[in-house]
Amino acid sequence: MKTPKNPTLLQLKKLLPPGELSFDPAVLQAHSGDKWYATSLPEAVAFPSSTESVSRLLTYCNQHQIPVTPRGAGYGYVGGCVPVRSGVALSLIKMNRILEINREDFVAVVQPGVLTEQLQNRVEAKGLYYPPDPASKANCSLGGNIATNAGGPRCLKYGVTRDYVLGLEVVLADGTICRLGGRTHKNKTGFELARLFVGSEGMLGVVTEATLKLLPLPPYRACLGVGFDSPQTAARALGAIFAHGVLPSALEIADEFTLKAATQLTGTRIFKGCQAYLIVELDGQEASVKGELKSLEAIINKFKPVNLQRGLGTKGCEKFWKLRREFSAGLRGTGLTKLNEDIVVPRSKLVALFSFAEKLQKKHGFAVACFGHAGDGNIHVNIMYDRAEAGADERADQALDDLFHQVVSWNGAITGEHGIGLAKRRWFPLATSEAVQQLHRTVKEALDPAGILNPDKFV
Amino acid sequence: MKTPKNPTLLQLKKLLPPGELSFDPAVLQAHSGDKWYATSLPEAVAFPSSTESVSRLLTYCNQHQIPVTPRGAGYGYVGGCVPVRSGVALSLIKMNRILEINREDFVAVVQPGVLTEQLQNRVEAKGLYYPPDPASKANCSLGGNIATNAGGPRCLKYGVTRDYVLGLEVVLADGTICRLGGRTHKNKTGFELARLFVGSEGMLGVVTEATLKLLPLPPYRACLGVGFDSPQTAARALGAIFAHGVLPSALEIADEFTLKAATQLTGTRIFKGCQAYLIVELDGQEASVKGELKSLEAIINKFKPVNLQRGLGTKGCEKFWKLRREFSAGLRGTGLTKLNEDIVVPRSKLVALFSFAEKLQKKHGFAVACFGHAGDGNIHVNIMYDRAEAGADERADQALDDLFHQVVSWNGAITGEHGIGLAKRRWFPLATSEAVQQLHRTVKEALDPAGILNPDKFV
Repeated sequence: MKTPKNPTLLQLKKLLPPGELSFDPAVLQAHSGDKWYATSLPEAVAFPSSTESVSRLLTYCNQHQIPVTPRGAGYGYVGGCVPVRSGVALSLIKMNRILEINREDFVAVVQPGVLTEQLQNRVEAKGLYYPPDPASKANCSLGGNIATNAGGPRCLKYGVTRDYVLGLEVVLADGTICRLGGRTHKNKTGFELARLFVGSEGMLGVVTEATLKLLPLPPYRACLGVGFDSPQTAARALGAIFAHGVLPSALEIADEFTLKAATQLTGTRIFKGCQAYLIVELDGQEASVKGELKSLEAIINKFKPVNLQRGLGTKGCEKFWKLRREFSAGLRGTGLTKLNEDIVVPRSKLVALFSFAEKLQKKHGFAVACFGHAGDGNIHVNIMYDRAEAGADERADQALDDLFHQVVSWNGAITGEHGIGLAKRRWFPLATSEAVQQLHRTVKEALDPAGILNPDKFV
Repeated sequence: MKTPKNPTLLQLKKLLPPGELSFDPAVLQAHSGDKWYATSLPEAVAFPSSTESVSRLLTYCNQHQIPVTPRGAGYGYVGGCVPVRSGVALSLIKMNRILEINREDFVAVVQPGVLTEQLQNRVEAKGLYYPPDPASKANCSLGGNIATNAGGPRCLKYGVTRDYVLGLEVVLADGTICRLGGRTHKNKTGFELARLFVGSEGMLGVVTEATLKLLPLPPYRACLGVGFDSPQTAARALGAIFAHGVLPSALEIADEFTLKAATQLTGTRIFKGCQAYLIVELDGQEASVKGELKSLEAIINKFKPVNLQRGLGTKGCEKFWKLRREFSAGLRGTGLTKLNEDIVVPRSKLVALFSFAEKLQKKHGFAVACFGHAGDGNIHVNIMYDRAEAGADERADQALDDLFHQVVSWNGAITGEHGIGLAKRRWFPLATSEAVQQLHRTVKEALDPAGILNPDKFV
């Protein structure tokens, strides 16, 4: 059965080039969600190959009030691209060409379906650098990164996706094609409209092309992997690093539960005896990096680490990052369900956060595993629980509720990287005032008056 | 005569605390414009001392459709705060308190009237760093910086004002108070609404408080001042610096006319025999900076500079920056009128831009002086002319017209720092498509339906 219930979608198929709209049940199923657990079947999945197709599709769906839920590679963690009200799932994954990499202008022009790591490899081969590095960079798309304003470890020094978006081609809800911003590294022509679409989770428009800022590739990198007797000591060492006037290219932390799970998965022995672990990376000119690494060692040694190892050069660093990237897999390897949150606390609250996580696990009887971007205060707090147990989901929600209330009372944010999507919709009113929610609605209604773009999410 | 023609403004005065609304002709005159030449008298000038006053004022003016033109210290270059349709000039300059500087969270919370340099001095005394450094930093306010998304030399490495705005308290056109964003360095809670107000030139809302991101203060800086035989050679040297994988904290250029004017003003001899001059600054740990400065010297020496001098430490650097800050004064010292533009070209077009500026001066018979942020491609192109000559303004406009057409055809931007305001309103349609202009109107109408905020500018 490959025809839709909705006859207006058959009409839409005729407006698009062959192969760009699918009603195949297996395809619908494959586009019903992301890496979070909720799913909802679309009636059709569109695979446009051009901006013109996106424009035609939106013009038609806007006229007929058909919901359209844009999606990248589907590697989101918050159900942001679940087509809750069915309609069309709009996959940008076939618009996957790198249109230009320019070594003089330090820009790349890409279509939204290009995978993040693919662009990074291509630009680095030319001595250029695109820093944003979400953990899923091998699988996630730049369009998805733009829709969620993706971060990653290197964002401590280099900023998030938003900071690299110079220009966007966006198709608005009514099909209008807008080219916003440009290819210069500075631009003050009008409002900051290109960046309004960054992080808008598919609710304000559909990005069909992006001009991204590139940097000169730092020629060298090196890191320290350091074990500590507690997360609190690790957090204090982190404060001392900043006080020295150094902004590392990454500063990651992991707690004991995470380290044990990663040890179980990989067989590594470097976390032995550690209650917490820091990875501190520096990049730049080789002599500078090596000199600064020595200073950092001296600073960190004052906190009596359990162990300290250097990683020199890309190869030396990758030894540590390979382990770092296994943290999530290690946690999943416990067989428990992992609710991966991405809260942010002001840096002064890092020590308190780790103490709070310990209390949280005692109160609710779940393990709580914390790791992440300590330098930003952006910590992945993972609630680890057995969904087979009676009432487990409700208890997990209560634990999240406690966590988010605490984070908000510290002037923190309930999400630093993943976005609100469906998963955190319930807590959006906790995290924002009524006036801010109203402003979201005002902007949404102005840009998408028929409400067709990714409906039933947080606005 | 201190009473307004408009009786509704007398009523407004009663709604505000004493002294917050002035009808004094001298005060009106002093708030009729900025550093650009156009002026227009407001009927009243408001000096609110609290967010509540701003909210009351906007609620009232919105109900009575009274134009409100917000302003900072009045150091803008594009007439952005000229109250074209009279009404109320809303000065934020009395809301001038630094509310908090937090060394652990790396944030500052400020009111909009705080002067930029005042904040910088205060945070640097605590080992912290607020990088954006517009040339007028001793006189301009952070609220004005936010309204124009101000830049400066250090923005090459550190980004512009937008990149430091974590949270904003904004009063909307109808008086609603919104607290957007927060105090964490990462935040993905909803749309990027705080940053929509950055650079909105007082047309979308009034900023009454800002939470700004701070960095660890780099403990050392050093620079090279280098003279060249032509701007073209200087631009090629610049390309070689980037190719080495270095992102300087600043990379400034000046052409011969600018150098001669600065020599005239200051009596310096360091520009002797130079057709162009570069200032390249590095910051970071002392040993690293010194090592990298030597590498840069070796790279630059390949381009056979006319002269090359080092500035070590803050004192050594300031010797060069003191001269750099005199470039504008030097040009004004020629006695000619100086139309200070701030165009941006993709980096690959820098050489072509300097050649184009030479053609422009031949064609129109004016001197054209270029200096600025070469690393960003953001060059202040100054049309130098005698306004007393018949038809001079019209000819200057023609020269600007030629310049902007050329810049746009290179995919450049007509403004990188100053904004559109009144001065570039005429060229906004050249720089943007009809769809982009319509999107500006859509956003403006949604946020300010009565159109009271800074009316008759570019939207």
